[in-house]
Amino acid sequence: MTKEPTWSQRFESALHPAIAQFNASITFDIELIEYDITGSQAHGKMLAHTGIISPEEGSLLVSGLEQIRKEYRTGKFHPGIDAEDVHFAVEKRLTELVGDVGKKLHTARSRNDQVGTDTRLYLRDQIQHIRSSLREFQSVLLDIADNHIETLIPGYTHLQRAQPLSLAHHLLAYYHMAQRDWERLEDVSRRVNISPLGCGALAGTTFPIDRHYTAELLQFDEVYANSLDGVSDRDFAIEFLCAASLIMVHLSRLSEEVILWSSEEFRFVTLKDSCATGSSIMPQKKNPDVPELVRGKTGRVFGHLQAMLVMMKGLPLAYNKDLQEDKEALFDSVKTVKACLEAMTILLREGLEFRTQRLAEAVAEDFSNATDVADYLAARGVPFREAYNLVGKVVKTSIAAGKLLKDLSLSEWQELHPAFDADIYEAIAPRQVVAARNSYGGTGFEQVTKALKAARTQITVE
Amino acid sequence: MTKEPTWSQRFESALHPAIAQFNASITFDIELIEYDITGSQAHGKMLAHTGIISPEEGSLLVSGLEQIRKEYRTGKFHPGIDAEDVHFAVEKRLTELVGDVGKKLHTARSRNDQVGTDTRLYLRDQIQHIRSSLREFQSVLLDIADNHIETLIPGYTHLQRAQPLSLAHHLLAYYHMAQRDWERLEDVSRRVNISPLGCGALAGTTFPIDRHYTAELLQFDEVYANSLDGVSDRDFAIEFLCAASLIMVHLSRLSEEVILWSSEEFRFVTLKDSCATGSSIMPQKKNPDVPELVRGKTGRVFGHLQAMLVMMKGLPLAYNKDLQEDKEALFDSVKTVKACLEAMTILLREGLEFRTQRLAEAVAEDFSNATDVADYLAARGVPFREAYNLVGKVVKTSIAAGKLLKDLSLSEWQELHPAFDADIYEAIAPRQVVAARNSYGGTGFEQVTKALKAARTQITVE
Amino acid sequence: MTKEPTWSQRFESALHPAIAQFNASITFDIELIEYDITGSQAHGKMLAHTGIISPEEGSLLVSGLEQIRKEYRTGKFHPGIDAEDVHFAVEKRLTELVGDVGKKLHTARSRNDQVGTDTRLYLRDQIQHIRSSLREFQSVLLDIADNHIETLIPGYTHLQRAQPLSLAHHLLAYYHMAQRDWERLEDVSRRVNISPLGCGALAGTTFPIDRHYTAELLQFDEVYANSLDGVSDRDFAIEFLCAASLIMVHLSRLSEEVILWSSEEFRFVTLKDSCATGSSIMPQKKNPDVPELVRGKTGRVFGHLQAMLVMMKGLPLAYNKDLQEDKEALFDSVKTVKACLEAMTILLREGLEFRTQRLAEAVAEDFSNATDVADYLAARGVPFREAYNLVGKVVKTSIAAGKLLKDLSLSEWQELHPAFDADIYEAIAPRQVVAARNSYGGTGFEQVTKALKAARTQITVE
Amino acid sequence: MTKEPTWSQRFESALHPAIAQFNASITFDIELIEYDITGSQAHGKMLAHTGIISPEEGSLLVSGLEQIRKEYRTGKFHPGIDAEDVHFAVEKRLTELVGDVGKKLHTARSRNDQVGTDTRLYLRDQIQHIRSSLREFQSVLLDIADNHIETLIPGYTHLQRAQPLSLAHHLLAYYHMAQRDWERLEDVSRRVNISPLGCGALAGTTFPIDRHYTAELLQFDEVYANSLDGVSDRDFAIEFLCAASLIMVHLSRLSEEVILWSSEEFRFVTLKDSCATGSSIMPQKKNPDVPELVRGKTGRVFGHLQAMLVMMKGLPLAYNKDLQEDKEALFDSVKTVKACLEAMTILLREGLEFRTQRLAEAVAEDFSNATDVADYLAARGVPFREAYNLVGKVVKTSIAAGKLLKDLSLSEWQELHPAFDADIYEAIAPRQVVAARNSYGGTGFEQVTKALKAARTQITVE
Repeated sequence: MTKEPTWSQRFESALHPAIAQFNASITFDIELIEYDITGSQAHGKMLAHTGIISPEEGSLLVSGLEQIRKEYRTGKFHPGIDAEDVHFAVEKRLTELVGDVGKKLHTARSRNDQVGTDTRLYLRDQIQHIRSSLREFQSVLLDIADNHIETLIPGYTHLQRAQPLSLAHHLLAYYHMAQRDWERLEDVSRRVNISPLGCGALAGTTFPIDRHYTAELLQFDEVYANSLDGVSDRDFAIEFLCAASLIMVHLSRLSEEVILWSSEEFRFVTLKDSCATGSSIMPQKKNPDVPELVRGKTGRVFGHLQAMLVMMKGLPLAYNKDLQEDKEALFDSVKTVKACLEAMTILLREGLEFRTQRLAEAVAEDFSNATDVADYLAARGVPFREAYNLVGKVVKTSIAAGKLLKDLSLSEWQELHPAFDADIYEAIAPRQVVAARNSYGGTGFEQVTKALKAARTQITVE
Repeated sequence: MTKEPTWSQRFESALHPAIAQFNASITFDIELIEYDITGSQAHGKMLAHTGIISPEEGSLLVSGLEQIRKEYRTGKFHPGIDAEDVHFAVEKRLTELVGDVGKKLHTARSRNDQVGTDTRLYLRDQIQHIRSSLREFQSVLLDIADNHIETLIPGYTHLQRAQPLSLAHHLLAYYHMAQRDWERLEDVSRRVNISPLGCGALAGTTFPIDRHYTAELLQFDEVYANSLDGVSDRDFAIEFLCAASLIMVHLSRLSEEVILWSSEEFRFVTLKDSCATGSSIMPQKKNPDVPELVRGKTGRVFGHLQAMLVMMKGLPLAYNKDLQEDKEALFDSVKTVKACLEAMTILLREGLEFRTQRLAEAVAEDFSNATDVADYLAARGVPFREAYNLVGKVVKTSIAAGKLLKDLSLSEWQELHPAFDADIYEAIAPRQVVAARNSYGGTGFEQVTKALKAARTQITVE
Repeated sequence: MTKEPTWSQRFESALHPAIAQFNASITFDIELIEYDITGSQAHGKMLAHTGIISPEEGSLLVSGLEQIRKEYRTGKFHPGIDAEDVHFAVEKRLTELVGDVGKKLHTARSRNDQVGTDTRLYLRDQIQHIRSSLREFQSVLLDIADNHIETLIPGYTHLQRAQPLSLAHHLLAYYHMAQRDWERLEDVSRRVNISPLGCGALAGTTFPIDRHYTAELLQFDEVYANSLDGVSDRDFAIEFLCAASLIMVHLSRLSEEVILWSSEEFRFVTLKDSCATGSSIMPQKKNPDVPELVRGKTGRVFGHLQAMLVMMKGLPLAYNKDLQEDKEALFDSVKTVKACLEAMTILLREGLEFRTQRLAEAVAEDFSNATDVADYLAARGVPFREAYNLVGKVVKTSIAAGKLLKDLSLSEWQELHPAFDADIYEAIAPRQVVAARNSYGGTGFEQVTKALKAARTQITVE
Repeated sequence: MTKEPTWSQRFESALHPAIAQFNASITFDIELIEYDITGSQAHGKMLAHTGIISPEEGSLLVSGLEQIRKEYRTGKFHPGIDAEDVHFAVEKRLTELVGDVGKKLHTARSRNDQVGTDTRLYLRDQIQHIRSSLREFQSVLLDIADNHIETLIPGYTHLQRAQPLSLAHHLLAYYHMAQRDWERLEDVSRRVNISPLGCGALAGTTFPIDRHYTAELLQFDEVYANSLDGVSDRDFAIEFLCAASLIMVHLSRLSEEVILWSSEEFRFVTLKDSCATGSSIMPQKKNPDVPELVRGKTGRVFGHLQAMLVMMKGLPLAYNKDLQEDKEALFDSVKTVKACLEAMTILLREGLEFRTQRLAEAVAEDFSNATDVADYLAARGVPFREAYNLVGKVVKTSIAAGKLLKDLSLSEWQELHPAFDADIYEAIAPRQVVAARNSYGGTGFEQVTKALKAARTQITVE
């Protein structure tokens, strides 16, 4: 490692090679290169716009940077480990390309505001990608739901069968989680999209810069109002990691369900070959690797969130080198969330099929209609707690007798309570049990149909 | 433990006492009692409003519940460990007070939507308390800043002196962090303030309830559109814990600085007796316990955030008992954030004093004006990187000679570069160094004065 | 709050009441009171032993402290919020009881080494409790396993049926996890059981104390060799929290299985009424609250581990007030682990029953004997990968034909490969499939019987 | 992606390319290649040893695998993304090299026990590297300490000057933390060094394998006694991550101190050019990047610990695909800890110098000798609390008078308390204050000299 770092004049001896490697960030911050170029172009234009450099110098900087972008895209420019970081690499290449004027690019700017700008541009962009992926994920959920409004599926609490549901209603629950994710990312985005450019190292600058001009060029909504805050704020990254963690929470819940559903015991779905894998020694196996891996990656994003919080804790103002550690956690979280969303979308779209016959059998063979008996009585004036207790008893005796509720004779019902009538059988048939839950947001078919329509509109319009 | 749990009819034998205690939540969910009463009153009114119960029954329920609130406030009602949870405790007491009609309260409601409603009412309330505390904290920061616009303090990056600052500017950085916290809590609040009441156990209900009516009574902005989602969503609590963690990040950074400032080495502030403590064996000690404890409590809130994320990971729909664990983490985080904000506000308001003379000496005796020499040259046409390198050299030779930059003679300056003139001394005087950073958001006095005014307006108007 | 803190002489004004409350630890460190008394008694004896105080003074201190222990146990001494912390509370009461000699107790000691001593005594004790609970838990696992050596249960990977198992073998997996926990806590214990007493505030003391004497009295194995390290080390607590987290990992895995097993779909176990709860509105429900709550509490302990790591990160030497935050995380983790171990032990012992008939049916009706067909061929000279591929094919055609492997005719087998003979039917019968896995540590009945015996010896002897 | 995965026979259609990439682990598990080869060689030898394959076949497998090792080391074998994972890549290459016998390698083995074996071999190796690095780190600490037994440095609690210390004593505190790390890793190592090989997929195998034979070949201390536990246990990795987190805690504390020490305010050390970096715009800066980055990387390892705990929580037995996520967290933690230890060792060895004159001045100019006055009185019979209170008063009046304790006249002392004599001046001189703390583990020079000698012996012998 023989390079001269830009700050070497105050230093007499070179950096220890192992230390240089320890400090270097080029192996990962190369991810920022195009955002760095874009940010630098805006800065260069502003320097010319405010007369800090001449218009000709400004043009040279902008076109030289564009040249680097081309070289990077075509694989001609690929800075190695000796480049320290992507920012120096670009600045150095710029000076090679445009000569001494390249040395003016860093006027009125510091590495601190520069790297903050790049990171925000990157994250703003990635958030839009993730939001699009969420929309695709939601769209697939709605497509399946459309076909399964009247498909019944057992509904669970405590993983015990509770009340039967419309499968569409079940899938819509995930739709709504994703919708919150989508909205939450919009809120995060507002706090990402603030420009620190021009905050300098920590205190602003003595040059007559125009921060609102660069902000406009870079489509930032606002500029940081305090330079110290601008260079040392990483709230936006942590907020994103929290939003990313919640996306993973939601995907992990769906993953858990798909894993359960594809088990021999549930058999609610069949996994297709294109989205399942086998075992190296058990020839019969078909494993739900995708949801398992998504579930397994959940902790990874939680870990990055934690890592970044720990990094920030107790740091005195303003910039500290610790902040360099924000990048890998951020990049890996972005990559993970995008990959998991894509994999789950593919899985839903083409990797699994609901076994409707099995589902129909499932909802017919349990006591998940017991609440409806209690509701039946309550609707006929029996106080709810009393009705509930009566039904508890009848469930107990039925289990002992190996019967389901539908197997009880009318006289058995009436012995239990005189309010029962022949319509009790209709009231506890699975389809009716579902249909009857017609309160707003409930699983009743009418409600679900409305909810589906509203959802479809929501993702189309916004 | 001899009570009869409400669900005992289907069960033949009693719960094992140790298990009953393990399951019980009354020791902590008593915190929710008033929110539970309020929520139940709204539910009772709705039952009458929709004709599910009679108007008289509705009135009885509402007044009975109000009676319990009074009993609780006056210490007459204090449910013990045998009450399982606060909700059963209230329902049981209600039936004692109003008779059998009390048993109708739970019609068309489940524990799942009930507890979700209570928790949201609680958190909505607490968020408002915390936002008020943030405003007080901001207000104290502004009060101190007002008195210290022209007080200089060394500015640091890497904990190395970088450039001198206006002390007001430094304090405003914390103001802006708190402002983001305040705004972030508003966003969180929007996702807290959604009503799950009426989602039932998981599927809605067969009764003709009116969820929008209860939502309006309870001042919720919206109702959950999907019942499964409504009873199993804890995003709102996790989002709050993330916002709380960020508040703690900010307070921990300020704490770290106060600890540094009050050290023998910095001596930037004096701690007053009312906010410092001594040692049990070292009679000379005056310890900054408050900021240390705040810093120490930071991990506690991070830990709660992590705990809640872990709790939610991979949970199948809908409600699972695991969710009971959301409460203690939430309650303790609320308590911690409130206590830390209060303690830091008191510390700033009456517990510390800046040592202005020491600060004035500090900024005069270092090389934190070096950037200004480089800027001086750059403003006179020398490319920034060249200017920077020249100054690097002069700093090195000055250190070797035991001199500061202000001690160099004009001929020494001009030997270095002919562009130097007599105005270099003015340019590197601390006051001028600060004043010159007059870019938007910078530390220049003019900017700081404006920023202060804008901040004062911000907290007054909103 | 009118008390005089012990360090008030250097201070002119009283502590702000809100700050006093913020600093106070008495609400939770009261948990340490008996350990504090024991530690102080050892310190008092040492002071007399080394001649720093007179033998009479030493006796007075020891008996005075014993008196406080009695008062505490009988409820006569219960220091309130105004006591700041338990240590001052005890010292103050001591002086009331024995007069001025009480003021000599703190000679050659600091709060820092004192609190470190108390915490270690506490944790050492609690670890022994937890290790006993682990032994009970293991013992119940062995009791059940004893009855189920020949009970078959499907074995899973990826939650897909893989190969049938002896139920005893399955339960022994948890036995071994608990065994590691038990051993790990022993390692942790070695690093807990080191005396910091006599480290003073940070630097040792000028008094001719005898640290090995107090260590011996308190049954510490060693003394800290460096006073700075002794007062600021919290490794032992973090190590414990990691061991506690692993216990929770293991319990959460078992919990997940019990939840699955008690679902309608698995029906592998029946929950008994004494360890299950009902629903507030669904009369048929019997919920596995215990394993759900254990699973839900897992994150809580992870969170405490994280909190303590965060607390320690970047703290300069030696003691900092942040360390006060170690206690609640530690106490709550101890409480949680003990309660979860107890609840799971009760659940296993009296709360669930395996449904052996259902299990027998389950293992007979799937393809989990497919590996045995491949092994059958491999044992007859067919390369494993080839055999594996052949079996893959036959599974596929069987599924299509709605057959299980046992339903294939001999000619169908031989068509597939000539190496098959009539003994293939025996080879793929579930009982034989299990018995055949007779490699060390495998599920073969012979191995399991040996493993059970070894386990029983292990928990008896050690 | 056109490869045929080994398990494709039961499957009719190919894996979706995006899913194949999502599942693939070759990009990171290539790190295990040599451990995989070594493990497979032992397995091959065992197959021949037990007669499962012929001796000739065994030899072919072993030499073929050795050939792959050579090809890998010389860069001729570098499996790409289409290889799914490193294990298939090696097995496939083996079959290319040795023909059909290569297909016999996987007899009596599963991917699950294979990957578990590889990971343990890797981690066992890495732990030894880290332990060596810890020894080097300790050794450098001792080298510096040797030169600074009599160098005084202020000792702090609450970052307030408490009592002066021998610098060697201060450094020895870090030595002891590292010693615990070294010992802890030995404990972890015992639980890493257990062989899962032969556990099969989950249940053992039908082949007459010899697990103790492979364990001996691979130098494992033990074999897993339960096959289910063997394939699904990741305790060892989590334990390692906890130990790694504690190493980072210790390094972060030292880092914090170096950062403080190199600040303008402390000036206790000078950073050398070889281990410090400059600023991109402030020519005077010399930044302590190494300790900042180490401190910043601390959260990263905490995050990995958390991620792995989260991954394991609630996983049913036995293997689940989630476990694939153990690797990146483990590899990155190993890499991070090694790099941080190396960087801090270099920093201490050649990157910083203590400024002894500044340190000498520092200890002479504060009240950190106040405890010694109290001790002076206590040693003359004044109860400690009384002595302490007296000194508190004198400190207060001295501060007001702008005096240090050494500036008080003898009559002033005696006015305070008649027990004072002329030897009080000697008693409170910094060198004497340090020397007098001669209790075991204290900072007295005699103790420190002994402690240094013991430490040197410890790292030499073990």
